[in-house]
Amino acid sequence: MDASPTNSEIDTAAQTSGQLSISALPGIPLVNPGDDIGSIICDGLLRCGITLQDGDILVLAQKIVSKSEDRYAALDSVTPSPAAIELAKEVGKDSRLVELILSESRGVVRKRKGVLIVEHNLGIVMANAGIDSSNVEPLGGATEDDAKQQVLLLPKDPDGSCQFLRDSLREKTGADVAVIINDSVGRAWRNGTVGMAIGTAGIDALLDLNGRHDLFDRPLQATQVGLADELAAAASIVMGQADEGRPAVHIRGYAVQTGQGNAQDLIRAQEQDLFR
Amino acid sequence: MDASPTNSEIDTAAQTSGQLSISALPGIPLVNPGDDIGSIICDGLLRCGITLQDGDILVLAQKIVSKSEDRYAALDSVTPSPAAIELAKEVGKDSRLVELILSESRGVVRKRKGVLIVEHNLGIVMANAGIDSSNVEPLGGATEDDAKQQVLLLPKDPDGSCQFLRDSLREKTGADVAVIINDSVGRAWRNGTVGMAIGTAGIDALLDLNGRHDLFDRPLQATQVGLADELAAAASIVMGQADEGRPAVHIRGYAVQTGQGNAQDLIRAQEQDLFR
Repeated sequence: MDASPTNSEIDTAAQTSGQLSISALPGIPLVNPGDDIGSIICDGLLRCGITLQDGDILVLAQKIVSKSEDRYAALDSVTPSPAAIELAKEVGKDSRLVELILSESRGVVRKRKGVLIVEHNLGIVMANAGIDSSNVEPLGGATEDDAKQQVLLLPKDPDGSCQFLRDSLREKTGADVAVIINDSVGRAWRNGTVGMAIGTAGIDALLDLNGRHDLFDRPLQATQVGLADELAAAASIVMGQADEGRPAVHIRGYAVQTGQGNAQDLIRAQEQDLFR
Repeated sequence: MDASPTNSEIDTAAQTSGQLSISALPGIPLVNPGDDIGSIICDGLLRCGITLQDGDILVLAQKIVSKSEDRYAALDSVTPSPAAIELAKEVGKDSRLVELILSESRGVVRKRKGVLIVEHNLGIVMANAGIDSSNVEPLGGATEDDAKQQVLLLPKDPDGSCQFLRDSLREKTGADVAVIINDSVGRAWRNGTVGMAIGTAGIDALLDLNGRHDLFDRPLQATQVGLADELAAAASIVMGQADEGRPAVHIRGYAVQTGQGNAQDLIRAQEQDLFR
């Protein structure tokens, strides 16, 4: 007999029914700087007949949030530093892009020909500081060369963007929902990108199972789950990576109770990380 | 004009409708060595009224597959080598457990007090070679000390186990489904475990988007998606980690067309990995 919470007590805090329904919102238009993502989401929900409920989760692709926040950068306007020029030669990338990557980052984690992995200013370890030009409108012309001229940076404060959207959706619909911004990122040791949470609000991004027990009533050994990353990956499946045009996903069934954490909780502190 | 496939041609090969339904199968019993997982899944599907269809996906927790394959190891029967004894002291773990971890592994990737990250014989980089004792029946007594005596190893050939189950389900139901075995694993750089695919059959675990274009008809930059890992993470959300007893999950909506790959495709070759 001890005072630690029982599973049924913890179950009331955050639990899934065992059923999730994951829906890409149809008809989301190309997003422009200054667009109101909250309204765009509401229109998408209306289009597929979903009425937002408390505990629902919305996952948004990084690209549409960055576009709405005008996080475009034109390569032509970038003057690479000598360090960026040198690094660009080493990894075989455009020196103006490398300048942007470095200015978005705390430091280089690994580099080799064609690969530049950095610690983003947000703390996230990722290739190219999350900058790329897929699904970014070309500037001026439509040739591939032109298309390379404009790139998109991550939102400045993704957790803040999520909180803003969460507040906006509550105002518009009355529903208390969680919001996650996801991005497709590469990983150590494994091939292929997976959806990962770069911003969250209204959910315990890192779920702490401390106090939970296993089927045989023993304390769990691993007690932290990257819940928002799992939700980000799940949404990524229906978003697609190419021309699907499905950057907003609704998830129902997890029954989120308002959590206090954010996506920063998912970032391992450098001194505890054996791979930086 | 070139001869590369158009998106609509590729869409017919593997595509999602934009809607996924993820259901943990109810009433899955504790699994014992020799149990027929295929029958257990069919019973679970019946219980929740799901009729298996071509293109459905089943995700099974590593633990129930390992149990059915009798991958138990009793620590009492393990004699640690001198190397295991030394390493056990260094990382502060049971030397018999360390002996098992080493025998399941190709080598140690990182170690520090409390942490032992290895390259499993399957090629997967993970802590403790995936061996643990959560949700593993205690041997003999019910005290925590007894509980530590029995641990569970990963299936010997998870891709093979998936293929076996896929064949078994086709025989029982006529449906051509994909099967994934998932496990909760830790990651570089990030806190919290996420569901990851350790075995697959009937699906392109690593989805190649080569030939696909973005919204502006330009070739994609990142062309490989860790699809089976994303599905494994999605299933993990409804499985839970503790005493939920939901180790089998049905996913509908991805519309898998029979893929040829397996979970080995998800493992980055050592010479291409910057973090080993």
